[in-house]
Amino acid sequence: MRLKVLGSAAGGGFPQWNCGCVNCVRVRERNPSAESRTQTQVAITIGDGFWFLLNASPDLRQQILATPELAPIAGERGSPISGVVLTSADVDAVVGLLHLREFHPLRVYSTSGVRRILTETNSMFRALDRSNPPVQWCCLPLGKEVHLNGDSGLACTAVPLAGTYPDYVNEPLRGTLPPGEATIGLVVACHGKKVFFAPALPGETMTWKAQAATSDLALLDGTFWSNDELVAIRGGGKSAREMGHPPLSGGGGLLEELRWETRPRKVAIHINNTNPILDEDSAEHREMRDAGWEIARDGMEFVL
Amino acid sequence: MRLKVLGSAAGGGFPQWNCGCVNCVRVRERNPSAESRTQTQVAITIGDGFWFLLNASPDLRQQILATPELAPIAGERGSPISGVVLTSADVDAVVGLLHLREFHPLRVYSTSGVRRILTETNSMFRALDRSNPPVQWCCLPLGKEVHLNGDSGLACTAVPLAGTYPDYVNEPLRGTLPPGEATIGLVVACHGKKVFFAPALPGETMTWKAQAATSDLALLDGTFWSNDELVAIRGGGKSAREMGHPPLSGGGGLLEELRWETRPRKVAIHINNTNPILDEDSAEHREMRDAGWEIARDGMEFVL
Repeated sequence: MRLKVLGSAAGGGFPQWNCGCVNCVRVRERNPSAESRTQTQVAITIGDGFWFLLNASPDLRQQILATPELAPIAGERGSPISGVVLTSADVDAVVGLLHLREFHPLRVYSTSGVRRILTETNSMFRALDRSNPPVQWCCLPLGKEVHLNGDSGLACTAVPLAGTYPDYVNEPLRGTLPPGEATIGLVVACHGKKVFFAPALPGETMTWKAQAATSDLALLDGTFWSNDELVAIRGGGKSAREMGHPPLSGGGGLLEELRWETRPRKVAIHINNTNPILDEDSAEHREMRDAGWEIARDGMEFVL
Repeated sequence: MRLKVLGSAAGGGFPQWNCGCVNCVRVRERNPSAESRTQTQVAITIGDGFWFLLNASPDLRQQILATPELAPIAGERGSPISGVVLTSADVDAVVGLLHLREFHPLRVYSTSGVRRILTETNSMFRALDRSNPPVQWCCLPLGKEVHLNGDSGLACTAVPLAGTYPDYVNEPLRGTLPPGEATIGLVVACHGKKVFFAPALPGETMTWKAQAATSDLALLDGTFWSNDELVAIRGGGKSAREMGHPPLSGGGGLLEELRWETRPRKVAIHINNTNPILDEDSAEHREMRDAGWEIARDGMEFVL
């Protein structure tokens, strides 16, 4: 398996278009201690020329163009991208599907709850039906291994992580959606190797810890460093945990929870612009590295 | 007035993510005769520090970051962008609104038909309601001058251009939308100067020709060179005119229609990846220049 990180920031990216915080200013000024990051996007292949996208970020067009492996063959219309797997209906996880509207047949995998949000209350995604055959929406059942495209060699399992559907989802649809399908993690397995991808970890520790601990590579929710990070900056609003993102630091944070796990290569991804680990000179960045974590960057690659 | 072209390509951009045509290959290979282009996006200001966006392209985050004038003040959360004016509900004209979801109050101007498509059948745009105050949807009446933000100094008039609502719009909404509001051109005026922006020209010649001829600057539909451009490549599908884009060349094409108009500075924008004018060495590119046209590029700037 080969996995490429095409984007590593949380919603809005780094810098955020309307943010003048210390981190965002640093990256705008091209300070070498801060690297710009597009919104979280992962691509995975077994090396047969076909790629699957994990989520579809709003920066997807830019991310595909920055990745020569994802270019079409000269003289042909087409793409090595043959499917997309979604972990939620969050704007930063799904909008990129609209970048893929140029008449290319695809399979889109998600829970039924996420699919219903996109197909029943967001007509714009019908633009994907123009391809021949139209984009195929495939259901990811919870906890059951599914072979992507039937025979791609990549087995994918949806790990239910609880959480809630995005705020934009309105009634009456909201009331009819299966509560356990709002946010999932993905276990992608091939030839005995296992990747766990979970850019949001809203649920109980035991579910995701078990998945992380038995994986070779875990790309995990690195959105916030501390629980009150956004509250402190905005003077109000939701805590990190209330937004479905346990912080990296502190009691019950990711660093503490995975302190004794040696097996997975641990990578923090989906990093918010406010997170101090984005400053490579910061104490928090050093603390992550000392705890054995890597901090995802755009273009990072893993071979398993 | 100062106007910046942040993006100049048609839907999908140049290159398109899944296209291996001669033009797209040329730009991927960094051939100097072909310059990459993001999807059509214009920003306009009277020089008071506030900017208005004409449409909201799917590449908007990347386009804002590439434009230092649109950066927030260091240390503050905010943006010089104070409003967006939409010409249609096409995916490539509106998806960028979702890039602007980070809690920033904005006014969005459109016809009532376009607003209803976004707010009634695409719940994702509710993400814009999180700002305080929430994004304000303002109605652009046809043919009537509206002062953007009430007192910005920019007067904007919606020019009805006929056309049809995008294919993704489904019933029953489609049947209830005002037929004349699907596609508009925008006249933006200040201190006696006039810009006409019309990235699609589906309607009768007389409407848009009159607007172009009385403008100082006209940014016009340069999507296709010839009427059968896409049909020839794809072996089927709609002609340029059937897609709401009269070709540049041939009888009734833009070059012929505006051949005797000397007043507006004529700029072709919303250029499709298949259009031969994108190759600066081509005969078609030369023909455009000889006819007095400019070909929009990302970063191009106009002062009136």
